[in-house]
Amino acid sequence: MPPKHHCRRRLRSSHPCCGAHQAAAGCPSQVITPWDVTGGADGKIDYNKLVAQFGCQSIDASLVERIERLTGRPAHPFLKRGIFFAHRDLNELLDAYERGQPFYLYTGRGPSSEALHLGHLVPFMFTKWLQDAFRVPLVIQLTDDEKFLWRGLSVEESRRLARENCKDIIACGFDVARTFVFADFEYVGGAFYRNIARIQRCVPMNQVRGIFGFSTDDNIGKIAFPAIQAAPAFPDSFPHMFGERKDVRCLIPCAIDQDPYFRMTRDCAPRLGHLKTALIESRFFPALQGESGKMSASDQSSAIFVSDTPKQIRSKVNKYAFSGGGDTVEEHREKGANLDVDVSWKWLNFFLEDDARLAQIGEEYGSGRMLTGDVKAELVGVLTEMVERHKAARAAVTDEIVDAFMAVRPMPNLWG
Amino acid sequence: MPPKHHCRRRLRSSHPCCGAHQAAAGCPSQVITPWDVTGGADGKIDYNKLVAQFGCQSIDASLVERIERLTGRPAHPFLKRGIFFAHRDLNELLDAYERGQPFYLYTGRGPSSEALHLGHLVPFMFTKWLQDAFRVPLVIQLTDDEKFLWRGLSVEESRRLARENCKDIIACGFDVARTFVFADFEYVGGAFYRNIARIQRCVPMNQVRGIFGFSTDDNIGKIAFPAIQAAPAFPDSFPHMFGERKDVRCLIPCAIDQDPYFRMTRDCAPRLGHLKTALIESRFFPALQGESGKMSASDQSSAIFVSDTPKQIRSKVNKYAFSGGGDTVEEHREKGANLDVDVSWKWLNFFLEDDARLAQIGEEYGSGRMLTGDVKAELVGVLTEMVERHKAARAAVTDEIVDAFMAVRPMPNLWG
Repeated sequence: MPPKHHCRRRLRSSHPCCGAHQAAAGCPSQVITPWDVTGGADGKIDYNKLVAQFGCQSIDASLVERIERLTGRPAHPFLKRGIFFAHRDLNELLDAYERGQPFYLYTGRGPSSEALHLGHLVPFMFTKWLQDAFRVPLVIQLTDDEKFLWRGLSVEESRRLARENCKDIIACGFDVARTFVFADFEYVGGAFYRNIARIQRCVPMNQVRGIFGFSTDDNIGKIAFPAIQAAPAFPDSFPHMFGERKDVRCLIPCAIDQDPYFRMTRDCAPRLGHLKTALIESRFFPALQGESGKMSASDQSSAIFVSDTPKQIRSKVNKYAFSGGGDTVEEHREKGANLDVDVSWKWLNFFLEDDARLAQIGEEYGSGRMLTGDVKAELVGVLTEMVERHKAARAAVTDEIVDAFMAVRPMPNLWG
Repeated sequence: MPPKHHCRRRLRSSHPCCGAHQAAAGCPSQVITPWDVTGGADGKIDYNKLVAQFGCQSIDASLVERIERLTGRPAHPFLKRGIFFAHRDLNELLDAYERGQPFYLYTGRGPSSEALHLGHLVPFMFTKWLQDAFRVPLVIQLTDDEKFLWRGLSVEESRRLARENCKDIIACGFDVARTFVFADFEYVGGAFYRNIARIQRCVPMNQVRGIFGFSTDDNIGKIAFPAIQAAPAFPDSFPHMFGERKDVRCLIPCAIDQDPYFRMTRDCAPRLGHLKTALIESRFFPALQGESGKMSASDQSSAIFVSDTPKQIRSKVNKYAFSGGGDTVEEHREKGANLDVDVSWKWLNFFLEDDARLAQIGEEYGSGRMLTGDVKAELVGVLTEMVERHKAARAAVTDEIVDAFMAVRPMPNLWG
């Protein structure tokens, strides 16, 4: 049952910033950039319109089936439920995969907070599934430089947050034999820097102004930054993994607000002798306050963090999760809940793995037999279990393990 | 005897480009940027006006004497003859030096040609003298990334030229125990990259537009590049040399067209907790064709290269060196040569070390007793000796020696 809700917050908050930018992507009333997500007149995001505007493609049932067939696994709930709903060149990537041609995954995070919130986890959970299902290498970029350039953070604080966030990312269960995590302030240089310069030479200021809404008031680091997020899409940015190979395809799982970066990257690719990167793109994860709210790492009440206690989780869900239920029990029993705006229901669609139980809740709650309190209790149970599991996994991530994931090292067993 | 000639070519051609930029520095008719040097209405550069416009200071006799006193050496001819004629904060740097506070030298080159020409050698010859006289460390930046961004070169070709140019630079006689040569495509990263980002955050696009004349048609690499040339002015960009010290001052010998980069750098310095870099700046080295000509590494006839044969040197000087002599021998004997426009005389001012002989030539040639042919023969002798000496020194520069200068290594004996 695909969630129909439209939300205001990116999943992969790799590159949020001041939000002051208003770029060209989206219709006059709907603005989607890596830093700003604003719905249309009704506050909702029209994802169909977005797919058309961005020029990407929807993921349909046959594509989901194809992934199941190729991997021999049931599709991840995010795929089945249309949370990852759009793509670029995914069929071409799968064609190549069927022919035995290699690909790797690339995703990332802009480290702006001490701990991740649940929205941040979504792309990593899905990426882990993709890595396990396809048995492919993965690179994860921590854009500490980007957070430094956009926010008031010091270099030192950005680097510290990158390392803290890395622990949360590793706790998602990635395979160290096939995963390279890097922070820009450490890794920029050498082959990676040379690809950054190659991309920069392809991209005039006018183009980043058009794509991202940069102005001449912006600092020159911001203006040059898109090339730094683009470079990991080219395999020879990672000579310790892929040598100088250019025939390794790249698939990027991300929220759709990151699409502008990779449209730019795809434009450059053929000019630099590279294959165009493929994308698999998600909807936004809603704030507790609902689709018109803004989930922010700096607003504790808008999000559940992976460091929250069971008590905090219960309290936040009960207090803030926007309800689509009736104003009174009588009205609710009569008309049922409006699932389109109910945040607890939306979140269950992300995190309740049991399809049958999810369908049952949808049916019972939508028809008014189940009350908001019951659904919130169900959500609290799911989230608490998930967060406690994450905390235990994170506690096991030592500094040595972080170093192992972040080491620039030969990686002889990337595939198979 | 300071040369009065005004020339159209920078000495330190670290960052020449397409020449399409017209920036704000200089009066309406006199435009001086790192990429474009255009004289006033009469084709001449008014250096006094330039000093006033840029806001730097002239080097006077007392400053030259102070350098002689502090180093215990006679001043280099470039200093005595006013070729290095302007500075920023040189007195403050010398005050600190007298108090026993350390400084280092920073210069560079944009590797755009196979071999250096004599104009390229000028800042390196002077920098070597400074290094020997003050016994201080030196960093030399090879901006292969800049040449890549501005020109049609490939990354590989830019890197190759950087290494070739490095051999010519080493041949100038630098002390490997105190000299670190680096090429951006290799060295950008780590502490150096973190300083680049710090500088970029200080500098809005509007500022580089004002300083360098960049437009929104320029690629984003060019727009961000000034921070890469600025970063070596901060000592903690070189942790293998200076650790995390911020109290090591920096002195940059360069041609005055590079001043815009370092005005920008000096603006950023206090905001980043750094000392403002000091500068010692030279006039431009004239092309063979004279002050209205353009010496270019891509125009063989405009310059003498360190790879030229004695025959080529003789031929070029005789054929192209603009003469200020009379049209006929009779006229010359009567009126004398116009030293203000005579290129052979100008070049002798750069490279003939013997003050007495130089004064004699000026006297004899200016009064018409010496003919242009005699002066050219004298110049050919000086240049041939200099180029042959350079060739022999360069032939001794093995790949191992290049590696030694370019190694990121502990350098325990930087001073003394």
